[in-house]
Amino acid sequence: MGTLRVNLNERSYDIVNEAGVLHQCGAYIAPLLRGKRCFMVSDTNVAPLYGDTVLHSLADAGLEATLLTIPAGERSKTPEMLAWLWEQMAQSGATRTDTVIALGGGVVGDLAGFAAATMLRGVDFIQMPTTLLAQVDSSVGGKVAVDLVAGKNLAGAFYQPKLVLMDPETLTTLPDRVFSDGMAEVIKYGCIWDEALFAKLERLGSRPAVMGEITDITTACCDIKRQVVEQDELDLGIRMILNFGHTLGHVYEKAYHYETYTHGEAVAAGMVAAAKLGQKLGHTPAGTDERIAALLAAFGLPTAIEADRTVCETVLGLDKKNQGKTIHFIFLERLGKALPVAMDRAALLAQL
Amino acid sequence: MGTLRVNLNERSYDIVNEAGVLHQCGAYIAPLLRGKRCFMVSDTNVAPLYGDTVLHSLADAGLEATLLTIPAGERSKTPEMLAWLWEQMAQSGATRTDTVIALGGGVVGDLAGFAAATMLRGVDFIQMPTTLLAQVDSSVGGKVAVDLVAGKNLAGAFYQPKLVLMDPETLTTLPDRVFSDGMAEVIKYGCIWDEALFAKLERLGSRPAVMGEITDITTACCDIKRQVVEQDELDLGIRMILNFGHTLGHVYEKAYHYETYTHGEAVAAGMVAAAKLGQKLGHTPAGTDERIAALLAAFGLPTAIEADRTVCETVLGLDKKNQGKTIHFIFLERLGKALPVAMDRAALLAQL
Repeated sequence: MGTLRVNLNERSYDIVNEAGVLHQCGAYIAPLLRGKRCFMVSDTNVAPLYGDTVLHSLADAGLEATLLTIPAGERSKTPEMLAWLWEQMAQSGATRTDTVIALGGGVVGDLAGFAAATMLRGVDFIQMPTTLLAQVDSSVGGKVAVDLVAGKNLAGAFYQPKLVLMDPETLTTLPDRVFSDGMAEVIKYGCIWDEALFAKLERLGSRPAVMGEITDITTACCDIKRQVVEQDELDLGIRMILNFGHTLGHVYEKAYHYETYTHGEAVAAGMVAAAKLGQKLGHTPAGTDERIAALLAAFGLPTAIEADRTVCETVLGLDKKNQGKTIHFIFLERLGKALPVAMDRAALLAQL
Repeated sequence: MGTLRVNLNERSYDIVNEAGVLHQCGAYIAPLLRGKRCFMVSDTNVAPLYGDTVLHSLADAGLEATLLTIPAGERSKTPEMLAWLWEQMAQSGATRTDTVIALGGGVVGDLAGFAAATMLRGVDFIQMPTTLLAQVDSSVGGKVAVDLVAGKNLAGAFYQPKLVLMDPETLTTLPDRVFSDGMAEVIKYGCIWDEALFAKLERLGSRPAVMGEITDITTACCDIKRQVVEQDELDLGIRMILNFGHTLGHVYEKAYHYETYTHGEAVAAGMVAAAKLGQKLGHTPAGTDERIAALLAAFGLPTAIEADRTVCETVLGLDKKNQGKTIHFIFLERLGKALPVAMDRAALLAQL
């Protein structure tokens, strides 16, 4: 399949979604850059699998690339690792015409993107997402960040890439649990925007079946996110619907110190809980929770997670989508249509 | 005196320059904010002098302010201190409608501004510069940053304040050397833009005389910077003239590990060296160096600093104003008019 164009205020860029594109990445990237030097950020899982392929393609296109490898996992998404990337680039004599390339999942993309946004006050940035979650979520929208002790993604920027290259072949090497992690977000797009996508996923019902149509599916997800982000680049309005399942998902992640559950697993349980709450409050048709739970379960995702009340209060108090005492909670008006509702924070807590 | 309006693409803001304005800051600030909570960043020099005054005025205006005090000095402008500010704000449950206020010199402004630019991907920011250098330089232009091991200001952002409040009375408590630090930048504005300002400073010739006309002088400097920044917010063109004296100034700062000379002292010597080089290369009229040196000396500033050749090569190689192998060096066409010249980096090094 081909190319999706994301049109934003200051910058527009293409998302190329195509099998084998990693092998030709240099030819796509080189014409877009002002300089020749790239800093390619990857992690200890992904660099051994695809690092050489990408480096060779970049070299063939006349680009000089330095590989910066971080330890795989969410624990790398810290201010300390950001500072490490800054120092590495500075010590290599980085200039403003250099480029940062992120090759990996969401952690690599968010961290490398934040480094690109801030190195010398901003250098060019290319995303090459290699996980399902990163392909459908973190590579579109320009949100880059690090985690703080008090919560995830609390320091960051809005920074758009110049290009996103995604190769569906990288998804074949993902462990099942990492694949499912991304499926939670794929299912979310069905829930909030596209009932036909939801129904298609119900019909497919397994990883092998989904992989048979993966390029269409990930492109559909990116296209939904594109439409939402184009309307609300700075996350002041409609973009909040992308947080369906995430408010409680963040609670679950935090309650287990980001260790027990993946982001997708936490969001999965958060979506079911949001559907149940929507049904209880009359926002959401009865039975929606069961249909979502059944689809999540088909992809090995949890449909309920217990969380301590104190964690709940702490995280909901901190949630950066809050405006003063009010929190925008995302319900489903029906499968395929999200409904943001401004709720008093205390009233929400009382319902949980 | 009154108010200067800075007009930029996305945001515009006022610079209020008035004796006693710190005592009324809450009344200026409160109407501009979306929320009630402020994080006021200051340092161990400034907080004891003006912290209570500002906190009382904020409280009188109905704002809740938390004081975050950093150790005074350039050594605080680090990624680690940035992370500390992030964590402090996050632990206090910061939300997007909160505001960061910088009360202090350039270090406080640059660090707090970078924290504001990135906390929750951007919260409102107010500048209250208390040094001469910060009033005429770092409070206009939106450049915020931290230093890295390899050099100053290498990681940062462009982020405009919602308001700049400067009180000339804060300049009375500055040690002479800190006052002179700022005078170097004041003299720079005369050199690059305004011969009449330069001549006025020659006429005044001392700190007490300058203090008699300080509000006019600092406003004139801010107005020059305003005109330059309005034409080139992202530092891609004319803004580079503000770097007159800075390319070599950075070399001198680095050569002595940012300890022996202040920024202004290094820039002072850098301006004389740039004038001499301009004269040697035929860009600058003969005698310009002597006139600049005499004025600098009147304010206790150095007119020459020795630097190791290796440091020179390292710093010029890293200078983020470089485009590939070329460096834009700022000469004076005459006193009052800057002349950027694109030079081969090696050729520049050979001339030094």
